[in-house]
Amino acid sequence: MRNYILTFLLLFSAVVVMAQEEPVKMKPEMTEIWDPEVSVVTPGETPADAPSDAIVLFDGVDLESEWTSADGAKPGWTVEDGCVTVKKGTGVIKTKRVFEDFQLHIEWRSPAEVVGESQGRGNSGIFLQELYEVQVLDNYDNRTYRNGQAGSLYKQHPPLVNVCKKPGQWQTYDIIYTAPRFNEDGTYFTPPTVTVLQNGVLVQNNVKLRGPTEYIGIPEYFIEKHGPKGIVLQDHGNPVSFRNIWIREL
Amino acid sequence: MRNYILTFLLLFSAVVVMAQEEPVKMKPEMTEIWDPEVSVVTPGETPADAPSDAIVLFDGVDLESEWTSADGAKPGWTVEDGCVTVKKGTGVIKTKRVFEDFQLHIEWRSPAEVVGESQGRGNSGIFLQELYEVQVLDNYDNRTYRNGQAGSLYKQHPPLVNVCKKPGQWQTYDIIYTAPRFNEDGTYFTPPTVTVLQNGVLVQNNVKLRGPTEYIGIPEYFIEKHGPKGIVLQDHGNPVSFRNIWIREL
Amino acid sequence: MRNYILTFLLLFSAVVVMAQEEPVKMKPEMTEIWDPEVSVVTPGETPADAPSDAIVLFDGVDLESEWTSADGAKPGWTVEDGCVTVKKGTGVIKTKRVFEDFQLHIEWRSPAEVVGESQGRGNSGIFLQELYEVQVLDNYDNRTYRNGQAGSLYKQHPPLVNVCKKPGQWQTYDIIYTAPRFNEDGTYFTPPTVTVLQNGVLVQNNVKLRGPTEYIGIPEYFIEKHGPKGIVLQDHGNPVSFRNIWIREL
Amino acid sequence: MRNYILTFLLLFSAVVVMAQEEPVKMKPEMTEIWDPEVSVVTPGETPADAPSDAIVLFDGVDLESEWTSADGAKPGWTVEDGCVTVKKGTGVIKTKRVFEDFQLHIEWRSPAEVVGESQGRGNSGIFLQELYEVQVLDNYDNRTYRNGQAGSLYKQHPPLVNVCKKPGQWQTYDIIYTAPRFNEDGTYFTPPTVTVLQNGVLVQNNVKLRGPTEYIGIPEYFIEKHGPKGIVLQDHGNPVSFRNIWIREL
Repeated sequence: MRNYILTFLLLFSAVVVMAQEEPVKMKPEMTEIWDPEVSVVTPGETPADAPSDAIVLFDGVDLESEWTSADGAKPGWTVEDGCVTVKKGTGVIKTKRVFEDFQLHIEWRSPAEVVGESQGRGNSGIFLQELYEVQVLDNYDNRTYRNGQAGSLYKQHPPLVNVCKKPGQWQTYDIIYTAPRFNEDGTYFTPPTVTVLQNGVLVQNNVKLRGPTEYIGIPEYFIEKHGPKGIVLQDHGNPVSFRNIWIREL
Repeated sequence: MRNYILTFLLLFSAVVVMAQEEPVKMKPEMTEIWDPEVSVVTPGETPADAPSDAIVLFDGVDLESEWTSADGAKPGWTVEDGCVTVKKGTGVIKTKRVFEDFQLHIEWRSPAEVVGESQGRGNSGIFLQELYEVQVLDNYDNRTYRNGQAGSLYKQHPPLVNVCKKPGQWQTYDIIYTAPRFNEDGTYFTPPTVTVLQNGVLVQNNVKLRGPTEYIGIPEYFIEKHGPKGIVLQDHGNPVSFRNIWIREL
Repeated sequence: MRNYILTFLLLFSAVVVMAQEEPVKMKPEMTEIWDPEVSVVTPGETPADAPSDAIVLFDGVDLESEWTSADGAKPGWTVEDGCVTVKKGTGVIKTKRVFEDFQLHIEWRSPAEVVGESQGRGNSGIFLQELYEVQVLDNYDNRTYRNGQAGSLYKQHPPLVNVCKKPGQWQTYDIIYTAPRFNEDGTYFTPPTVTVLQNGVLVQNNVKLRGPTEYIGIPEYFIEKHGPKGIVLQDHGNPVSFRNIWIREL
Repeated sequence: MRNYILTFLLLFSAVVVMAQEEPVKMKPEMTEIWDPEVSVVTPGETPADAPSDAIVLFDGVDLESEWTSADGAKPGWTVEDGCVTVKKGTGVIKTKRVFEDFQLHIEWRSPAEVVGESQGRGNSGIFLQELYEVQVLDNYDNRTYRNGQAGSLYKQHPPLVNVCKKPGQWQTYDIIYTAPRFNEDGTYFTPPTVTVLQNGVLVQNNVKLRGPTEYIGIPEYFIEKHGPKGIVLQDHGNPVSFRNIWIREL
């Protein structure tokens, strides 16, 4: 009996010795990771439709459930024909909910009737976390400074291309936003990063922001630490419209 | 004369002193950047349509102009009904052109008739620069390992969510790819990075790859340096179809 | 006299007008940032000496104030001749304090009498946040696997060069460590990063870790979120010595 | 006998079956990487001494072998007592060699006799790749703007701490520099990154530069692409001294 077992063990040892001489082979299963199972999401029928895990911020009819004006009152903008339009002088509108990292789908339309030029034509903006502006502007055949045109992170990153549709046509922004994380002293540990597709074309590729958007001067390095914040749409005095607004928290 | 000038200089000095005491103010124009002008691109009519600066890799009819089989011969896959379908056993197809950084739009459909399970159901793949696989798989109600399912960077990054449509339905991938840059010794100076939207939903957010896709074992750290390379579609034996393939060099 | 001044003012006005037509000029003061004042630190006399803002973890005499064994008991290692030496079988020693981001200075010495080879010679380790090992090993004329030698982030990043001193000589590690930040699901939002200078020579340049150090297999992707943790020195059975240990919280 | 062996084999099979149901185990050797062997470097005797793979740029005696003035003529600075000192009005000195990524060790001393204040006291600078300045300034008990003091990347990144020694004392900078890589359009694909230890204390931790150092205005986004470039030491009119200058190409 002992001999048989000994023989077996010797054979086994031989295998081990061979294994040490040849490189050890891995197997496909060793690099499979099964858990936890990835969550299931049902996509929208079309790219404009919200996926099942999205929060619909504006469905074309109801603005008041999700938005207020800056002071918390009812938003003063006009809801009509399935879209919401800036009403000059009523100020920004702002989501009641607050967000950190997210994917945002939003569609916008500059007025069909062209009025003004450069920054004066079809100007509005989408402020991510209330502080970081993705510029909305009618830049179809309308030049302005490159770091302030449609698809720019205003005064920080010009768009890769100018892919504006004509005035009066609906355009889409698909925005992927990662919120900043902060050091104790109020500087960024990691800055906000943003990817933007305008009308399906990449205009910002994971760019890093230096600070909140500034109209004058360079972005502040020392800002107050902030947690989750809302989405703000700008009243720049031009009747820009928005529709199909949904957001997915990441 | 001297006195007047002296007075002027003293006044001027006073201004300078004041300037030191109050913070110096910048003006909005100081942070405008006008040149060079951003290039204009005309977007497609719908997200499926190629923008004006894209190369159409497959228009639904002509496969041979842009694709070959692995050995350079004519591609063996089937073109029919506006799409191209894997023909089992004919091997991969590969673009004639080569690319570095790009945005790729591609639509795919797993067979309506469900056959097999886990990795055996509707399996194909899109290799970026011939080396880095975005998995194509029918994961609708079909579990597999998380780092090998549809929307994964195969065996490196599971998708953020499983946003698969039903078998037989067309699905989209919008892929933003940044090619690696190399050190002298063949390691990455910067690794490849990939963002993927599947059916309009973010499934990969600027993830970094560790090396070429490996079925067995961990990705190699020492690979041969590579420059621009093609797009490869995988023949995994299942009749997966593709259509509306366009690419923009970044 | 008046004429002179008038001329001067006209010239000055002309400059202003030109300035408005040409791009607006900034002034040096506009990009000076004065506040808050940078904190003052007094450096050590020599690189081995702790700067004024450092915590001295071991001064050559007192081990018990700052260190325990793994179970919280008194550390079992030997303090003698201004250094502390691994006592085989007594297990690791660990700081009572815990840390996040830090700069760590530590000196180590492998035994003058060479015993063993490869991983068996002068083996110990410094675990950053108890989880991430900077390898300590006598690699002077002693080959081992590149991702396991002195100056490596064990099994993750080989050192850039092998800059080991001879057995029995004191060597220094200056380690700059940034702790990971976590996503909700226990994956890294940002991975740990490490820079190491060994004997004044760069051996790790801001490398990113994939997970806690693993002797077997690939680093885990799903680990428990962790906050601040201690520094651990490894008992690998070899009488490696340490001295001049100080740390600065970043 | 047979029964025993059968029992053994059955037990063994059971283990295999269990192994298939449980996760497949890897072995330690599977994650060892042996080739290529890491290069051996002999460290200097002290941190001031050059390691074996370094280029000595100044040994205390010979300046002309490695340095010129800006116009290529002999450098006009004073070599005396083992160090080289700025000679006011002779302009910068610049290395004949050019570099990309590197580790630089350099020691500097501001005049023992204190003259001037803020930027006027012991001012010089070390330009990495001729474009990116690490400030040299006597900031011992001498306040200036935080982004312009000793250890700053001038006007871009203030130092983490002010760890200046007294006037007349030698101080060290250990600088780890990664050169930018460029996009086709002259913007950075990856920006320059810099880590600095001053007197052994971390003052810059892998910070990214936005462009070449600018005294006035914000760094340019569109600069000419550049390859390897020299090290430049600044003549700011103050008799700052330098010694023990060595560099290692990374």
